[in-house]
Amino acid sequence: MSKLGLTSEASITLTAVPGFPEVRPGDDVAELLLAALDAAGLALRDGDVLAIAHKVISKAEGRQVELGKVTPSQEAHELAAQTGKDPRLVELILRESVGISRMRPGLLIVRHRLGFTSANAGIDRSNVAQSGQGETVVLLPLDPDGSAARLRQAMQERWGVRVGVLITDSHGRPFRLGTVGVAIGLAGLPALWDRRGEPDRYGYRLQHTEVGTADEIAAAAGLLMGQAAEGRPVVLIRGLQLPPIEGQAGDLIRPPELDLYR
Amino acid sequence: MSKLGLTSEASITLTAVPGFPEVRPGDDVAELLLAALDAAGLALRDGDVLAIAHKVISKAEGRQVELGKVTPSQEAHELAAQTGKDPRLVELILRESVGISRMRPGLLIVRHRLGFTSANAGIDRSNVAQSGQGETVVLLPLDPDGSAARLRQAMQERWGVRVGVLITDSHGRPFRLGTVGVAIGLAGLPALWDRRGEPDRYGYRLQHTEVGTADEIAAAAGLLMGQAAEGRPVVLIRGLQLPPIEGQAGDLIRPPELDLYR
Repeated sequence: MSKLGLTSEASITLTAVPGFPEVRPGDDVAELLLAALDAAGLALRDGDVLAIAHKVISKAEGRQVELGKVTPSQEAHELAAQTGKDPRLVELILRESVGISRMRPGLLIVRHRLGFTSANAGIDRSNVAQSGQGETVVLLPLDPDGSAARLRQAMQERWGVRVGVLITDSHGRPFRLGTVGVAIGLAGLPALWDRRGEPDRYGYRLQHTEVGTADEIAAAAGLLMGQAAEGRPVVLIRGLQLPPIEGQAGDLIRPPELDLYR
Repeated sequence: MSKLGLTSEASITLTAVPGFPEVRPGDDVAELLLAALDAAGLALRDGDVLAIAHKVISKAEGRQVELGKVTPSQEAHELAAQTGKDPRLVELILRESVGISRMRPGLLIVRHRLGFTSANAGIDRSNVAQSGQGETVVLLPLDPDGSAARLRQAMQERWGVRVGVLITDSHGRPFRLGTVGVAIGLAGLPALWDRRGEPDRYGYRLQHTEVGTADEIAAAAGLLMGQAAEGRPVVLIRGLQLPPIEGQAGDLIRPPELDLYR
């Protein structure tokens, strides 16, 4: 690592915060973060960004749902028959969404109430402790931007540091295979970075370049978070050189009327 | 940085290779890379990944085109009228693509001959030296996977290291605003990482998780490459823990017949 330090003015380090515990409803995520960072000898600095897998937030908010306690509507039964999905899961998807984008057997892509278009309204059961009689799934956080802002505020009050907080999910996408990390909540960093009008190396003014900066950070964090048994839901990112823009996740949603693919 | 080193088993460092020169047609990119790394005191190691902005490859291949030397076809004139674009640019877009995906005034999204769906077939003029009478644009590399493989081979022969090579572009996308880095060529690393069947932390077998690993790496590199005058087209990525899968960029293309959004 030492040689890499030579160019630290243009380097970014991502570190999985080790030993982050399983989260239970009602847990104070800020306290858990600070304890894990402290135990690892990691001291936050101004300008750091903490990327947090959304399940950490969802679980603390008690967004786990036992499928056995869900009563599907008639519409859920019909969509379940068409997609081959569990009607109780479809019921939850419908409650979490404002519209169906596409479906086929095995697949139900919806527009989430938060604006994101994704499979199953972001509901899944991986890395969720199973309790009770039936299967337990977890919904997206109620207000990821708000959760990110509260965590950012707590970090500032308790540790005196100004960090960015990013809440992430993994989305599939049209055109390209493979899921990638995306930002579903954020505070203290830009979502989009509009570079239109800036000169390139030859003085040409960029015409179309608006960068999905928060999604690029979320994708980078996804490389460490993993999907399986890694248990690395929190990633500390240092060295980002971001403009002082305070974005929100909704900035990344392409308005339906401007999206040629809806 | 020292404290971050405590958890180096789960950390990733991205470093912009400083002083990478302007590339001219016929340049040996491997030589330029090795010289820039050497000058920066950066020694490659097995398992490193070099992410390279596609323009480096395109320029070395002589893929610059002066618009003044392009004669638009009738079809190009018609599409130019519908989109408000330069007919000569539209001509190049058509030559580089196998089909039009969507268009409206100001926007022409096509399926590139390499399979990617993107605006303007990846052709643009930012960060391109302007020569001659008219505007000069640059096309995508002829065979980005092949270029990546040759660079990987050169690194192994000349420096004795086995590195991954990733050639990147920035794409806009449906549903979400903002461009993000994507992989358009690669060698020595996976494009997709299929984690279906792996257990999560509770023993549940993942059912749908195929990760767009190369795109996540490209997005991470995009954070350093920038879009404007940064002049950081090469990013060294260290600490990735990738499976021994040798992918290709085509792995990331969703087959049209499986894409609900075409």
